Amino acid sequence: MNEADGRFMALALGLGRQGLGRTWPNPSVGCVLVRDGRILARARTADGGRPHAEMRALAAADPRGATAYVTLEPCAHVGETPACASELARAGVARVVIGCADADARTAGQGVAILRAAGVAVTTGVREAEARALHAGFLSRVERGRPALTLKLAASLDGRIATATGESQWITGTEARRHVHALRARHDAVMVGAGTARADDPALTVRGLGIARQPVRVVVSRRLDLPRDGRLAATARDVPLWLCHGPDAAAASRAAWEAAGARLLPCAVDHGQLAPESVLAALGAAGLTSVFCEGGGGLAASLLAADLVDELVAYSAGLVLGAEGLPMVGAMGVDALAAAPRFHLAETTPIGGDLLHRWRRD
Amino acid sequence: MNEADGRFMALALGLGRQGLGRTWPNPSVGCVLVRDGRILARARTADGGRPHAEMRALAAADPRGATAYVTLEPCAHVGETPACASELARAGVARVVIGCADADARTAGQGVAILRAAGVAVTTGVREAEARALHAGFLSRVERGRPALTLKLAASLDGRIATATGESQWITGTEARRHVHALRARHDAVMVGAGTARADDPALTVRGLGIARQPVRVVVSRRLDLPRDGRLAATARDVPLWLCHGPDAAAASRAAWEAAGARLLPCAVDHGQLAPESVLAALGAAGLTSVFCEGGGGLAASLLAADLVDELVAYSAGLVLGAEGLPMVGAMGVDALAAAPRFHLAETTPIGGDLLHRWRRD
Repeated sequence: MNEADGRFMALALGLGRQGLGRTWPNPSVGCVLVRDGRILARARTADGGRPHAEMRALAAADPRGATAYVTLEPCAHVGETPACASELARAGVARVVIGCADADARTAGQGVAILRAAGVAVTTGVREAEARALHAGFLSRVERGRPALTLKLAASLDGRIATATGESQWITGTEARRHVHALRARHDAVMVGAGTARADDPALTVRGLGIARQPVRVVVSRRLDLPRDGRLAATARDVPLWLCHGPDAAAASRAAWEAAGARLLPCAVDHGQLAPESVLAALGAAGLTSVFCEGGGGLAASLLAADLVDELVAYSAGLVLGAEGLPMVGAMGVDALAAAPRFHLAETTPIGGDLLHRWRRD
Repeated sequence: MNEADGRFMALALGLGRQGLGRTWPNPSVGCVLVRDGRILARARTADGGRPHAEMRALAAADPRGATAYVTLEPCAHVGETPACASELARAGVARVVIGCADADARTAGQGVAILRAAGVAVTTGVREAEARALHAGFLSRVERGRPALTLKLAASLDGRIATATGESQWITGTEARRHVHALRARHDAVMVGAGTARADDPALTVRGLGIARQPVRVVVSRRLDLPRDGRLAATARDVPLWLCHGPDAAAASRAAWEAAGARLLPCAVDHGQLAPESVLAALGAAGLTSVFCEGGGGLAASLLAADLVDELVAYSAGLVLGAEGLPMVGAMGVDALAAAPRFHLAETTPIGGDLLHRWRRD
């Protein structure tokens, strides 16, 4: 790629990243309009997913003869609004530079085809790996029918998330916990298992970062046997609360949670527990592109055993609790090392007194 | 400190580090002789602890009018050989620059006093923290009556050292395992619990690094119920094998192990297991200044619970085994977070596909 194309695409990628967690069910696209080396406009997909980045950029400047840098192939399908590919051509853009192709069957290749048919020059695959990483959640929803899944594991050096008596606040320090809130904000949803919801009574909101749009809160509870006098229930009308439950959840519980403002997502049961594939399929169908799972050990184990975890974010605290402590990952049924899910190290950073290490699925 | 003093002391510290694991019961001292900015001699304490670094440096050059950089206060006591402090003065050294004071009651302050009484200029505390780190094991033996203890923890991301079926080879990769061998070589001894000795039949030698002097192998086994047809027994005449046992070890077992070439160290029992304080005191009394413990989980837990671990070396492999796996640290009896031993992060490095992180006791 030429140097200027790489530089302007990097800018567009940065804009797109700013919208992560805020544009679902749509991708968080970044767009930069450039003419004669000067930036005319920069935009990202608006919160909630509309307008698209391209339309916002076109509205901000006279784009005739300009080059548009777009992180994802412009859409080709006419929905509530006209297709971005047609609009870019109609507005007189001379060239479009694309990060990665859209996987949505309504657009894949069609966006490029519309542009070229209209006489617009098109360059594809500029900073493609970074663009695919930015849009990993959206691509996952479209290609695999489920959101990209990040699993948080915050534990002592020996992998414990609470003492034998249940004390867990706090194993990691304030800086690590603030980092967790920043990660929550960059995902469409935060998810925990029923045991964690019962034990910790968490709010699962993003705090201290001044954000306007909270991620959806998802609780996985086969029987919906969750306390209705806790923080989740109290805030269900202010911040979305989605409950994934099994067919055997009592009708009275369902009715009570719906009355409290929660959204119910029925899921399949397998081997006596909610099937993790079914949970993620339901979340994908509901439009989520990325989910940040914060445990507990049982939910983490079932997601790992089903090979549904795309990224692990581990916070290791400098203390040791011993084998009576609660394990960070529950029973997985892994007998042989060769059967264990494997990840490669992507990042390692000291954070406060703790160690952050991120791993991606091989 | 002046710039030249710092530079020459850094050189002496590097020489001292080369001897770690090879000079016990003596410290691994580094010494550099400098005159008019030119290096006349450089030396470290010889393997086995004698001659001392200062005597080797004096033997290598005419030291009259020179400055001697020594990582540890020169010894003041006359033993098999004359005291280094007197010899430096007698040889005509004009100035001695010292990293850190000796803690040995026979020398502490006396080395400096002898030098000054003989008209030698003395500067102390140059790169003192580094010098204390180099001599941490020796200082520990003298001040606390026990060797410095490093605990290795090599495990899956969720802190497991084997699957439920006992499969453990290999969780970490070849680079991490090579790194372990390098660490073994830098300690006076390698130590494991009886369970690990039985389960893994380890040789506990340093391999692949071409070293001439192997660390002592220590096995902690209350009843000496170790297999006598394994690698440890077969090599007991070639590489030192020390067995820490309780008063209830059968006389026949003791006799058999001594006949095989092992050295027996009787230790006290507390709460039904060998008291870790007693084990380390016995190892310190036998002359060891540093011990590298490689588990298993039971021994690690008892050392941690007794707050005897000075440094943790953790290797995290990018796989997850689940709660049925064998925990890296056994039961510790820690109920409250405030009671857990705490460490601060000293280093983090990717190593092969694994993550190395080192932690020091707060």
